[in-house]
Amino acid sequence: MEALGVGHSRPARAHGAKGVAILTGYEKKAASKATKSFRSEVAAFKRRRILEEACRLFYERGYAGTTLDDIAAALNATKPLIYAHFNNKGELLYEICIAATLQSLEAVEVACAEGGTSSQKLLRMVRGMVKVVVRNQANLAVQIREEKQLPPAEAREISTKQKTLDERIRRVLNEGIASGEFKIEDPGLAALCIGGMITWIFYWYRDHGRLSEDEIARGVSRMARMIVGGKV
Amino acid sequence: MEALGVGHSRPARAHGAKGVAILTGYEKKAASKATKSFRSEVAAFKRRRILEEACRLFYERGYAGTTLDDIAAALNATKPLIYAHFNNKGELLYEICIAATLQSLEAVEVACAEGGTSSQKLLRMVRGMVKVVVRNQANLAVQIREEKQLPPAEAREISTKQKTLDERIRRVLNEGIASGEFKIEDPGLAALCIGGMITWIFYWYRDHGRLSEDEIARGVSRMARMIVGGKV
Repeated sequence: MEALGVGHSRPARAHGAKGVAILTGYEKKAASKATKSFRSEVAAFKRRRILEEACRLFYERGYAGTTLDDIAAALNATKPLIYAHFNNKGELLYEICIAATLQSLEAVEVACAEGGTSSQKLLRMVRGMVKVVVRNQANLAVQIREEKQLPPAEAREISTKQKTLDERIRRVLNEGIASGEFKIEDPGLAALCIGGMITWIFYWYRDHGRLSEDEIARGVSRMARMIVGGKV
Repeated sequence: MEALGVGHSRPARAHGAKGVAILTGYEKKAASKATKSFRSEVAAFKRRRILEEACRLFYERGYAGTTLDDIAAALNATKPLIYAHFNNKGELLYEICIAATLQSLEAVEVACAEGGTSSQKLLRMVRGMVKVVVRNQANLAVQIREEKQLPPAEAREISTKQKTLDERIRRVLNEGIASGEFKIEDPGLAALCIGGMITWIFYWYRDHGRLSEDEIARGVSRMARMIVGGKV
């Protein structure tokens, strides 16, 4: 509880009775900001945990076979906790179903933002997407099994995002064709096939299987580069 | 009703009153055999139609949401018709779920039986498998969505067949490596990726879409050949 040395931007802390810190006006503001950010951190953590348990239960028992009470019980909580963060079971399903697509879009964006040749972008993009699939195996299984349970608007939203993802992959392929790096007869079909071999990992991947996440990511990105006729 | 000309193996037919043919002993045997084969043809047809309607309904309403009565109604029939061919709803699901895998295994067998180079086998194999996926799109969707509903023994049976299919693909890849046609770092992973990009067609294929079944089959087989470093 010593005041920090000179040069540190935080003002020296006053101490009240029993060594409990009394906050200065500056500190009060900072603390209130920190509390707010801490609160939103906690809220985000709770949301994440609810989604994790919902996903696990939807994966194991199916969407229809899982109630909000089941999810609350799995968290040692009650239904109001869930209602504090989600409107209904459908919203949970929507969040679970769109998760992998959103993360894959992010992976593609990151891969492209780093620049370099089309080949480098493709390798990074595929590696990123493989990791998303491996880490969202249950989400993907729930998405593919249960997406028919989604309300139409939510289903369309996910489908639009998936089309955007295909389009982003295709864009990298087209860039590579334009630069002379890739030789691809049908970039649209190639994008679907690259996306397909990556997505299908959700079906066969096993934790502690023969190949690690990294080995799969490397191997699959190499194959993607071969599909596009890129130099290996 | 004229007797057939000389040289035909069937004996001349005798005619009874009103021109109704009286069967000779030879013909009686042949007719009984024909009736038997006709009967089994009809039985096979009925089984196929029941499975088609069951698959369509499982696809549209889900397995849990479909009763045997629904399936019978879709066929303008009653439940006993279904029980004449299947023991229960689970047996229908099993047949629907295993269909694409069995047909793919057959496609691989045919592709290999025709001989030729490993590259030719691979091309034929992939083309055949693509056609199986396109023609069993609903089966595959039901399989992936509902396989958790299968009794454990049936689920294991399907999983074993899928492993056999992966193994058959791997075998063609290994043959190509041995003959110097293919250059593959990890044939196991390559087999899963080739299988994955083919299987995933079930998810994006649309009837009357931009690409025909044949165009997809040709395009995907070309990509498979690139994955294995084969000459294009």
